[in-house]
Amino acid sequence: MVGPAFGGAFDERLNDRMRQRDSLVCVGLDPDLARLPDPLRGIDDPEDAIVAFLAGIVEATADLACAFKPNLGFFLAHGTAGVRALERARRLIPSDVPVVLDAKIADIGSTAAAYARGVFDAWGFDAVTLNPYLGEDALAPFLARPDRGVFVLCKTSNPGSGDLQDVALADGRPLSRRVADLANAWAARHPATVGLVVGATWPGDLAAARAACPDRPILLPGVGAQQGDLAAALAAGIDRRGAGLVVTSSRAILYAGSGADWADRARAETERLRDEVNRHRIRLA
Amino acid sequence: MVGPAFGGAFDERLNDRMRQRDSLVCVGLDPDLARLPDPLRGIDDPEDAIVAFLAGIVEATADLACAFKPNLGFFLAHGTAGVRALERARRLIPSDVPVVLDAKIADIGSTAAAYARGVFDAWGFDAVTLNPYLGEDALAPFLARPDRGVFVLCKTSNPGSGDLQDVALADGRPLSRRVADLANAWAARHPATVGLVVGATWPGDLAAARAACPDRPILLPGVGAQQGDLAAALAAGIDRRGAGLVVTSSRAILYAGSGADWADRARAETERLRDEVNRHRIRLA
Repeated sequence: MVGPAFGGAFDERLNDRMRQRDSLVCVGLDPDLARLPDPLRGIDDPEDAIVAFLAGIVEATADLACAFKPNLGFFLAHGTAGVRALERARRLIPSDVPVVLDAKIADIGSTAAAYARGVFDAWGFDAVTLNPYLGEDALAPFLARPDRGVFVLCKTSNPGSGDLQDVALADGRPLSRRVADLANAWAARHPATVGLVVGATWPGDLAAARAACPDRPILLPGVGAQQGDLAAALAAGIDRRGAGLVVTSSRAILYAGSGADWADRARAETERLRDEVNRHRIRLA
Repeated sequence: MVGPAFGGAFDERLNDRMRQRDSLVCVGLDPDLARLPDPLRGIDDPEDAIVAFLAGIVEATADLACAFKPNLGFFLAHGTAGVRALERARRLIPSDVPVVLDAKIADIGSTAAAYARGVFDAWGFDAVTLNPYLGEDALAPFLARPDRGVFVLCKTSNPGSGDLQDVALADGRPLSRRVADLANAWAARHPATVGLVVGATWPGDLAAARAACPDRPILLPGVGAQQGDLAAALAAGIDRRGAGLVVTSSRAILYAGSGADWADRARAETERLRDEVNRHRIRLA
């Protein structure tokens, strides 16, 4: 079993890490066997191939990252082998780097409790992304943990996110604003750190989420392969301390190179993104 | 690799099974090690204990069931051992019984594609429950499969489901009605069978979902341990052919007995529920 290196609230550990490393960059771990770098293509066993790849990525980028974010779907796609790879990859990450499991789950009653035990205890993740559609009681077993974090999906980065998230409520506001308000209510009633997920592809929604939640961490996907406008997103989402955004990049870092220097290329892309983010946040401060 | 025993649309296979077995009962597979029957408590290995338990349940109930529904959370709670148990349990189910993976997932782009490969190809499930909050493109890789089914969460059975699902839209209707309309739109654009999940605890919402979707299968949790009113739910949700409802019971069947006769007790409870459902549907017809 692994877990947080030291106690304290998740947001404090995240903020400390951002400050110590001067970095808001979170490296997304989305292993795709079809895109492995050439030197790893000879590894037949899918579990070993994923672990070798992620070991290289973690070693090359950990000192530049405020967090890592493995996405459960890329591991479950390989069944048992994938879950074993996820457990091994979790243990490769130094214990002072927070790890967010991107699972986007939610379920009711006893199932939610089972998920929370799996995510936080069996696997030792520091935080998890959750889907708000089922309501507060479905998230309660996750929210009950004072030393862990949850990031509630608010406005996701994909083109179809508006199907539900932009639906106008009776008061004229889109549904995603209601989710930001609910996150505040849930945070007031439960001890876990409550953050939001807002895609960099929607700077207007990001500004609204930041206004509603001035001090909550916001996980920001969509700046790499998804082409969100980084400058606009940072202007909209940085908090009053010049932080509070977990800027996530997955494919642009993982697959920056495919030759012998793949790990160096991943490091260079992480460094480039960190510096670009920092240029914008210095300008804002 | 396992999978559907024969081709054809998921809803046709489900309807055939309901007719052949004269049963709308779906047995939910939510293994909880703390509640295993006494004769299995000596099995130390969690994977083997789960598989032994589910093998007994499947053998005792398969001929009475229109479907089985394993819930991913109860397996992921045990990490790799749980996923191995899920894969083994899947293979224990006779290939003429549809199996719905209750995962309540959704993710974007390449992650959704990875999940769909895992659920349908690596694991061979016939259908899956999905969360609509991320919108159509997040569900598209699942919806693209003509021989599989998706059940979209519409109004869930838990007490807090209203936090989002009951929120009033600008037109005065609750959000869950919008989801039922979206399910119709998605079904018109994609080849998979599209059904809904509506909790038996909300007969009014179930009647509205049936009115919006007269011919879609509706997965109905909440009749067993959650104490939904079965007669009211059947009156609200049965379709014009006297079917169309997948009446799910998990804990009430799985843990009906804890002694040497635990499998017989599970069978008796399944039979009792099947007959109770059939009494109400004959009365309706």
